[in-house]
Amino acid sequence: MNTYLDCFPCFLRQAIEASKMVTDDAGVQRRVLNVVMEKMSTFPLTATPPEMARVIHQIIREVTESDDPYRLVKERSNEKALELYPKMKELVGTSGNPLLVSCKLATAGNSIDFGVPSSSFRDYHSLIESALSSPFKVDHFDEFVGCLSHASSVLYLGDNAGEIVFDRVFIEEMRSFKDIDVIFVVRGGPIINDATYEDARHVGMEKVAKIISNGCDYPGTVLRSCSKEVQELFQSEDIIIAKGQGNYESIDGSRRNLFHLFKVKCPVVATQLKVDVNDMVCVNRAGWGSQ
Amino acid sequence: MNTYLDCFPCFLRQAIEASKMVTDDAGVQRRVLNVVMEKMSTFPLTATPPEMARVIHQIIREVTESDDPYRLVKERSNEKALELYPKMKELVGTSGNPLLVSCKLATAGNSIDFGVPSSSFRDYHSLIESALSSPFKVDHFDEFVGCLSHASSVLYLGDNAGEIVFDRVFIEEMRSFKDIDVIFVVRGGPIINDATYEDARHVGMEKVAKIISNGCDYPGTVLRSCSKEVQELFQSEDIIIAKGQGNYESIDGSRRNLFHLFKVKCPVVATQLKVDVNDMVCVNRAGWGSQ
Repeated sequence: MNTYLDCFPCFLRQAIEASKMVTDDAGVQRRVLNVVMEKMSTFPLTATPPEMARVIHQIIREVTESDDPYRLVKERSNEKALELYPKMKELVGTSGNPLLVSCKLATAGNSIDFGVPSSSFRDYHSLIESALSSPFKVDHFDEFVGCLSHASSVLYLGDNAGEIVFDRVFIEEMRSFKDIDVIFVVRGGPIINDATYEDARHVGMEKVAKIISNGCDYPGTVLRSCSKEVQELFQSEDIIIAKGQGNYESIDGSRRNLFHLFKVKCPVVATQLKVDVNDMVCVNRAGWGSQ
Repeated sequence: MNTYLDCFPCFLRQAIEASKMVTDDAGVQRRVLNVVMEKMSTFPLTATPPEMARVIHQIIREVTESDDPYRLVKERSNEKALELYPKMKELVGTSGNPLLVSCKLATAGNSIDFGVPSSSFRDYHSLIESALSSPFKVDHFDEFVGCLSHASSVLYLGDNAGEIVFDRVFIEEMRSFKDIDVIFVVRGGPIINDATYEDARHVGMEKVAKIISNGCDYPGTVLRSCSKEVQELFQSEDIIIAKGQGNYESIDGSRRNLFHLFKVKCPVVATQLKVDVNDMVCVNRAGWGSQ
């Protein structure tokens, strides 16, 4: 999707929050903002929001001289989520529909996002409870199950640290449901709190999927910038699961085998999908017209 | 108060929302944003937020060639609030504490603010109901009543169109409580949806108070820029009531006879006052230390 002017205040907020994570020096924070605003003034609206977000976080890293401002946040997110792993397994195992419950958990895990306003280490337990009692507000889960029933390979585009533990639970259930090979794709470098190779390894993703890097550091999946391997897998795999709003914003097209799972984070996307901010969605854009 | 970097995304959001009110031309909207961002890059943080807000809305008026983008919004706010006037009078008249109830209504009226995110013509009835059941989260109302008991003159610094109908009800109750002269101060020119002389006349404020302009067009009260008359009244009147967060942000000092009534609109001010966004407050800053 294109970038909207309404995204600009959000870019600026992200720049402030990330700068504050790295430095208390108000002068440095102000320099970050000024460079970001200068870049925003010429940013083409035909580019996707994750492309601008990447520029912003590059500026933050350069001006604050910090390689990975969210490193600690990512580590803590992974640890907190790992603590919940046994509870999630129990919840899924004792439910009447493990595939649906684990899919909802994976979507709820998308709440762990430091790119959105005032994110913090919220109560993960209540996050799980509320997720399980909330329906998908765009609900193409049945189409997903239909697709999965005939699939033997899944390309899973991950999103944030912490969230990837929830993804692991979902992947385990998919593999119980159907004999599939899963490739789990992470960002090629640090960007906001998005999961990288180290994060995926840290939560044991290699036990359930092959982990590969997408070869670039957008907080989304800008396919033309991804490695040739990921571009080819995007064409060849039976199902693609794309986690998070950044992947939704940056992947164009409406393939029948592409499913977006995320919590809606902003009014721009909420309006597009005719849902509210914070709603959980399971979207197949090819199926969208038939709603 | 100083401007914080956290105010910058909010300035940008205001610029977008106001531009959209005036024009559908995305190119013009973008030009507004770019000029605003350029100005923000050199704006001194020692100035108050209303001072930056004034610059922003000047830019909007210049670039969009619109003298008063919020004119229609203000007219509609006044009309909607006037429709509620009989109900408010009844509520106040049948209550056990008309002064408190009308003061709360006046504070609730401060919700009518198009400078805050996603404001719209919300359900004014529910606004009244919820206001009456909510306490002041900073509550210096007793000190206010004590002050009023010994006063013969009140300088009332108004805020938004629509809200001024709620103010009128409060002023009527103050005058029932005590024989006082009230001077109602409006902005000297159009700025956001702040009430001007025409708005005050439109809602019949002249029946209960003398209406005067403050001589400038900040969305707040920047005293050194106000008319000599207002500056002198600020020193001589027995009580000053300052409505709205813009007046709180722009008036410094902690006079025993100055009371701020507003709904808290943003996290920066909420943090300062140790309350939550959307809380109603009745603040005397001289009394703040004794809390």
